[in-house]
Amino acid sequence: MRALTAAIAALFLSAAAAAQQAPRYEIPEAAAETARTLAERGASSGLAWEIVESLTTEVGPRLAGSPAEARARDWAVQMFTELGFSNIRVEPFEIDYWTRGELSAEISAPFPQPLVATALGGSAATPQGGVEAGVAYFPNFEALARSPEDDSLRGRIVFIDDRTLVPTQTGAGYGPANFKRTLGWLEAQRRGAIGVVIRSVSSGAHRFPHTGIMSFPEGAGRPRIPAIAVSNADADQIARIVGAGHELRLRIRSTAGWRGRAESGNVIAEIPGRERPEEIVLIGAHLDSWDEGTGALDDGAGVAIVAAAARLIGQLPRAPRRTIRVVLFGAEEVGLLGARAYTDLHAGNMDNHIVATESDFGAGRIWRFDTRFGDRSLPAGDAIHEILAPWGVLRGGNQAGGGPDILFMRTQHNVPVVTLQQDGTDYFDYHHTPDDTLDKIDPEALRQNVAVYAAFTYLAAELDVDFRN
Amino acid sequence: MRALTAAIAALFLSAAAAAQQAPRYEIPEAAAETARTLAERGASSGLAWEIVESLTTEVGPRLAGSPAEARARDWAVQMFTELGFSNIRVEPFEIDYWTRGELSAEISAPFPQPLVATALGGSAATPQGGVEAGVAYFPNFEALARSPEDDSLRGRIVFIDDRTLVPTQTGAGYGPANFKRTLGWLEAQRRGAIGVVIRSVSSGAHRFPHTGIMSFPEGAGRPRIPAIAVSNADADQIARIVGAGHELRLRIRSTAGWRGRAESGNVIAEIPGRERPEEIVLIGAHLDSWDEGTGALDDGAGVAIVAAAARLIGQLPRAPRRTIRVVLFGAEEVGLLGARAYTDLHAGNMDNHIVATESDFGAGRIWRFDTRFGDRSLPAGDAIHEILAPWGVLRGGNQAGGGPDILFMRTQHNVPVVTLQQDGTDYFDYHHTPDDTLDKIDPEALRQNVAVYAAFTYLAAELDVDFRN
Repeated sequence: MRALTAAIAALFLSAAAAAQQAPRYEIPEAAAETARTLAERGASSGLAWEIVESLTTEVGPRLAGSPAEARARDWAVQMFTELGFSNIRVEPFEIDYWTRGELSAEISAPFPQPLVATALGGSAATPQGGVEAGVAYFPNFEALARSPEDDSLRGRIVFIDDRTLVPTQTGAGYGPANFKRTLGWLEAQRRGAIGVVIRSVSSGAHRFPHTGIMSFPEGAGRPRIPAIAVSNADADQIARIVGAGHELRLRIRSTAGWRGRAESGNVIAEIPGRERPEEIVLIGAHLDSWDEGTGALDDGAGVAIVAAAARLIGQLPRAPRRTIRVVLFGAEEVGLLGARAYTDLHAGNMDNHIVATESDFGAGRIWRFDTRFGDRSLPAGDAIHEILAPWGVLRGGNQAGGGPDILFMRTQHNVPVVTLQQDGTDYFDYHHTPDDTLDKIDPEALRQNVAVYAAFTYLAAELDVDFRN
Repeated sequence: MRALTAAIAALFLSAAAAAQQAPRYEIPEAAAETARTLAERGASSGLAWEIVESLTTEVGPRLAGSPAEARARDWAVQMFTELGFSNIRVEPFEIDYWTRGELSAEISAPFPQPLVATALGGSAATPQGGVEAGVAYFPNFEALARSPEDDSLRGRIVFIDDRTLVPTQTGAGYGPANFKRTLGWLEAQRRGAIGVVIRSVSSGAHRFPHTGIMSFPEGAGRPRIPAIAVSNADADQIARIVGAGHELRLRIRSTAGWRGRAESGNVIAEIPGRERPEEIVLIGAHLDSWDEGTGALDDGAGVAIVAAAARLIGQLPRAPRRTIRVVLFGAEEVGLLGARAYTDLHAGNMDNHIVATESDFGAGRIWRFDTRFGDRSLPAGDAIHEILAPWGVLRGGNQAGGGPDILFMRTQHNVPVVTLQQDGTDYFDYHHTPDDTLDKIDPEALRQNVAVYAAFTYLAAELDVDFRN
């Protein structure tokens, strides 16, 4: 009993010590009240829905480098103009342009039947007339990567299976599962295979294949072989046939390929700060999408959430202290090329980027507030969280990623970041498939996102906090 | 109070009178016990799953008249042989053969983007290079059918919208919703339209188009225009653009068409009756499928259910009185051509068809037992129902349809029929789409079907009941 009392006393002492190290941060009541009002307005605003409906309908799919992505930039400039933003501009950059062309894939033997498939981003075309070959089956990427580099795969088509992606709130598991997509081509090509087929990196129970860009490691060049993904149902079918001991053969025809250089660009709009306009709170999303769906969840929803949240702040009678910069990145899907261009162009001004975040994980409710702040500003993070908490938001840790387009700012320039973590349990059912369409967005969850973004963004721009410290 | 007593007395009297008109039918205890045992065996048998897995994997899609449908007949003969059936045979017939070829469909203006579409069965090809035209929008089939037959649709593409199909347990609503698919082409073509596009006849929330055969009324000939269905999400997109007042234009390219004559066939196998082998209890399903999925729910499941149920009966030490005939119909999807061929070929023997039923509504649990019997055999129907009831089966009415391939036997020859009504709430999410694959079948529900089919089929073949009376 005495030991317990001592333990409790120690607990209180250490809590007190912690409280001493990190004193409570008090948000001025006027700012807290404005943030709460903004959240209420966000939760009852139809603006984000109007924005994502407009983008997915009037532009639709918008592949990086394509004429459709250029139309999306025009659309974004017009949208920001109509919503009264300032300093609206496009920062163009050039990219290598890839398109999928046409694809057919089928089991040619022993049981001929078509497969539902998609070319992976960066895939090569087949020779005209296609390729047809026996299949070398690997249960996962690691099995292929560890297999001997002898001639056993020469002239064959490699199939990389895996377990179906497990759905999680955070998307955990997507990264490791993705190696078969990003590097499967290289391991197959290096062993003389003439094509690579993977199980889609998808938790989806419906028969959609999941596309996505491949990786092109330094010195490896671009793929010379076709690389495709089949739906989970088709991967099951392949696994069943191979599992029953049959010699499986596939036929693939693809006209995918790189088509030279093309223009992309980031679209920027601002709400200038009233006291320190040079200091920037950056909220982003990406404007490009894969070409098979209409890019509603990825990332039309993000575009709508950050634009609508900033618009609500712009309608306040008095702008916050710092500038709010909305960045709609181009060419995210094909390798974070807009993020690269933005970070390079603004490298000299990164110290003025006070905090950054991106909405790029669908349209599920925000359930956690993660930060990556300096220790001394953590109490301010906790205080901001208290404003967000009534919207169903838990306090997360201090290892936030911030979002894909924020990556280089964070890793190369130590820009403080926040992740407003969305519930992505069903995200990988739809992501990068033809099924990523407007009807998959829950309007109420979308409004909750706007509520949380508006409150956070306002506070980050209004409070006198240096999140680096 | 006295009035109430009198009412109760009247109730008892009328119940007694009813009981007098239709005396209770007692199933002999040995037969009841065998039926119960068969149901128990069905509920724990993996055979149906093995059958549908084999058919959907080793044959896959099996369009009527195609080489794949011929392989399915070979597969069926082998399956019946391995399972020890008797009198296994194929009854061939010829059909007009249609294939879809290749299709692309897109919004060409004002917001260019591809559509997810499928050709409807019987659709014509477009001229090479496709057709491109302004869209005439109709909110439903009736609006088109009632529109004036003037020149206002000449050179245009007709779009027939509708509300998304409401899911129901029984599939109610599918019939009326289907007019746009079956006859939309005719109403459009007659008014000079150069193509017809419909909202899929589907309750599906995922981006699959729903194919299906069109109707070709006497004298109308075959379609001369392309006829396609788009997914619900794409129909929403079209409706949004038209609803916003834009002039919508579509482009369609299709190589669909009729390819002359081809062979189809019905596959038959029997368990000969021990006392009255000439009397037939027919249980059917259809062997063909649409070409985009692997025909798991439509109708691989039905094939598996009836074959597995009959097999269980075939394993009894003593066959039932009457012959059980399993018929796997060919060319159902393209206009009940196998049903037509069977009924014509066996027209002289229809009086020996004691009762017939078909499993063709997916793999959901059976929840209702519908009959179409003569009045005097209704008590036998009720007694059979009592055996099925513990499996979750309610007693339905006496207006059963029996199944599509049973139609002509019933309507032209008054063959008594039964419907073992399956829960089809999600059937039209998958039906006739690429998403009709093995993983959509719930193995436990499939076993419940086998249990109910085995018990019913055995009793129909064993009991001395003339269901016509």
